[in-house]
Amino acid sequence: MSADLHIDGLRLLAKIEQLGAIGALPGGGVSRLAFTKEDGLGRAQVREWMTELGLAVRMDALGNVIGRRAGEADHLPAVMTGSHIDTVATGGKYDGNLGVLAGLEVIETLNDRGITTLRPLEVGFFSNEEGSRFAPDMMGALVYMGDMSLADACASVDNDGVSVGEALASIDQVGDAQIPGPTPHAFVELHIEQGPILDKERLDIGAVTAVQGISWQRFTFYGVSNHAGTCPMSMRHDAGYVAAEVTRKVRQMTRHSPDSVGTVGVINMHPNLVNVVPNRVEMTVDLRHVDEAELVEAEAVLLAFVAATCEAEGVTFRTDRLARFQPHTFSPAVTGLIAEHAAELGLSHRLMSSGAGHDAQIIGRKCPAGMIFVPSVDGISHNIKEHTEPHHLIAGADVLLRTMVSLANQPAGGTQAGDL
Amino acid sequence: MSADLHIDGLRLLAKIEQLGAIGALPGGGVSRLAFTKEDGLGRAQVREWMTELGLAVRMDALGNVIGRRAGEADHLPAVMTGSHIDTVATGGKYDGNLGVLAGLEVIETLNDRGITTLRPLEVGFFSNEEGSRFAPDMMGALVYMGDMSLADACASVDNDGVSVGEALASIDQVGDAQIPGPTPHAFVELHIEQGPILDKERLDIGAVTAVQGISWQRFTFYGVSNHAGTCPMSMRHDAGYVAAEVTRKVRQMTRHSPDSVGTVGVINMHPNLVNVVPNRVEMTVDLRHVDEAELVEAEAVLLAFVAATCEAEGVTFRTDRLARFQPHTFSPAVTGLIAEHAAELGLSHRLMSSGAGHDAQIIGRKCPAGMIFVPSVDGISHNIKEHTEPHHLIAGADVLLRTMVSLANQPAGGTQAGDL
Repeated sequence: MSADLHIDGLRLLAKIEQLGAIGALPGGGVSRLAFTKEDGLGRAQVREWMTELGLAVRMDALGNVIGRRAGEADHLPAVMTGSHIDTVATGGKYDGNLGVLAGLEVIETLNDRGITTLRPLEVGFFSNEEGSRFAPDMMGALVYMGDMSLADACASVDNDGVSVGEALASIDQVGDAQIPGPTPHAFVELHIEQGPILDKERLDIGAVTAVQGISWQRFTFYGVSNHAGTCPMSMRHDAGYVAAEVTRKVRQMTRHSPDSVGTVGVINMHPNLVNVVPNRVEMTVDLRHVDEAELVEAEAVLLAFVAATCEAEGVTFRTDRLARFQPHTFSPAVTGLIAEHAAELGLSHRLMSSGAGHDAQIIGRKCPAGMIFVPSVDGISHNIKEHTEPHHLIAGADVLLRTMVSLANQPAGGTQAGDL
Repeated sequence: MSADLHIDGLRLLAKIEQLGAIGALPGGGVSRLAFTKEDGLGRAQVREWMTELGLAVRMDALGNVIGRRAGEADHLPAVMTGSHIDTVATGGKYDGNLGVLAGLEVIETLNDRGITTLRPLEVGFFSNEEGSRFAPDMMGALVYMGDMSLADACASVDNDGVSVGEALASIDQVGDAQIPGPTPHAFVELHIEQGPILDKERLDIGAVTAVQGISWQRFTFYGVSNHAGTCPMSMRHDAGYVAAEVTRKVRQMTRHSPDSVGTVGVINMHPNLVNVVPNRVEMTVDLRHVDEAELVEAEAVLLAFVAATCEAEGVTFRTDRLARFQPHTFSPAVTGLIAEHAAELGLSHRLMSSGAGHDAQIIGRKCPAGMIFVPSVDGISHNIKEHTEPHHLIAGADVLLRTMVSLANQPAGGTQAGDL
């Protein structure tokens, strides 16, 4: 690949600022919850840019928007990039948006240079990735890939009783493109890390090997309320003590594997009085692992520990599953390409997993896919203080450009993205 | 002592029911918060009984009421018994009331038999032992013994802004007896255990050696809020994890001593979300021990553990003292007399400490004192389900009778209560 193939960094930064101005919050950050008026304004801006770039824009009935640039062999499946432009209520201007706008910048760079790839290129934004207003998250990608029905998606309601279908109609974002959409040859997504690893390790690029699977459970422990002074320790059935032991176990379980995390985020004590032994405690355990078998094993180990600890304390328990997603492993070929192009550009990089969910893991169920991470300062995201240094935004878009060109020049029949 | 010296059990039970009918709650139990109209009605009933028994009744300006029966050597300090008749908002009819009414039953039994003791006998009820409406608890005993000023006590206000002084006046319970009152020769209090030990061990009587000292602390831990998926374990500063380790330590610290208890009753997590590492946690630690040096040592051990755990996790903390009471050790002579009379009556018994506070620990600062415990079914107290079996109520009153007679026949100058 030509050594001087680079995107236009200032042009990318300018577009990020322009889109970030729509739904901008005082003090920084942005609020464009899915299918709100602000989301509608953001969508109109990005579609306008797509049209200006000469892309053929299509939209489906869930508001997923894809802009297409023809290839030399335009009948071949496209190489797609994209992400989302909806945000959480108090989000940043990089989360999701970077991936979409870097995709447009890739197109514009190729346009400027008169480069046509063998395969067509597509840049998309998928509806309601955040899931902050409507469940589930990654809704648009799920429907685009046929993993969720349009009817089910449109029936989802927000806290005010408004459905996705109603909200989409209200911002005039109901199209007629095919559902499910055509499966791409390969999919690559550029995203901010939303975690601290690259920033702490002072690295430029993460080549993402996998998205962690997620297990959310709620445990409720039922003990016996007793007086803190008059009840001897040997006669206690302390639901809070069990919760403490489980919290400690969750930490211990993650010691042996850098690919696993475990978090106790919620503890509700009852009656929550200084001199009363708690008789009921609800706690949540968030376990994540890149390997499904390991995640299943971790759940089993935790359950056995909970049961044994409860029995020893004379406490009963129930467990409720709050959420469960299997891990997704990206195409090693695509991940390898990303690392290779980062190296070629002289960028420091590492392989890493993602602790957060992304559209790429849904698209990647049916085609080779990969993700490029750039650092989040202090790991902060979903926050108006979310920040990524401009040179990292630009570096990530350069890696995206080269990875897409490489993938888009893969011939049919011979070497496939997944075989690289 | 005459082998047939017994109180009249049915008469005692009848008085308990009569007093328990004043402020009775639907479903059982009683509500006579200090200085309320119901407390006033209860006070009037008990004073009427005292007068009927021929006692000389005196009341001080905090509403402490003492009924006195003359002794042969009436100039000698009296042997006093008593407790309280105020209750918590949803209390039982035995807590406090048993000690006062058993004292009256002792007097009536001696009246019936024409027995006059060497020393005078006194039966009292001390104001606001519970402290549910006005702080501090054991207020009446503190003022009676000169450990709190009348002015300070009268200035205490309830949640509605009503002062003790106003409340006392409103129920016409302001007397003119001397404050502080005369220090007795000895003090003995019969009380329900309010804990499970005697009930679980199927024993009739507890001879109380000490009241545990109490240390209440609040720890606040300050960590860093992070995403449960994207933040590696090694980069976390988890305030909730520290709280769990401290909870476990509190349990461990009590393993070696049956005389110590430790309780984590309150944990407040922030932001208390399933997928966010907690950045702030408040927790309380309630430590109790019968030995002050051991309690001080336990506080120091805990503080060192907190500091080390916080440092290892990169979490900071602050600690606030919520309450602190030193332990009180009762007179071994009085405790020995109680055990001796329990044995004489063929009652099973043990030495034990009290985890709850009682008037006797205040009176006992300045004279030999002791307490007789009778079982609480399932250890339940401060609850409308509070129950003590009738034969245990009667057994406790019999032990009180004999202990008082023994103490009241101790001559001046020679053997004293504290020397037995």
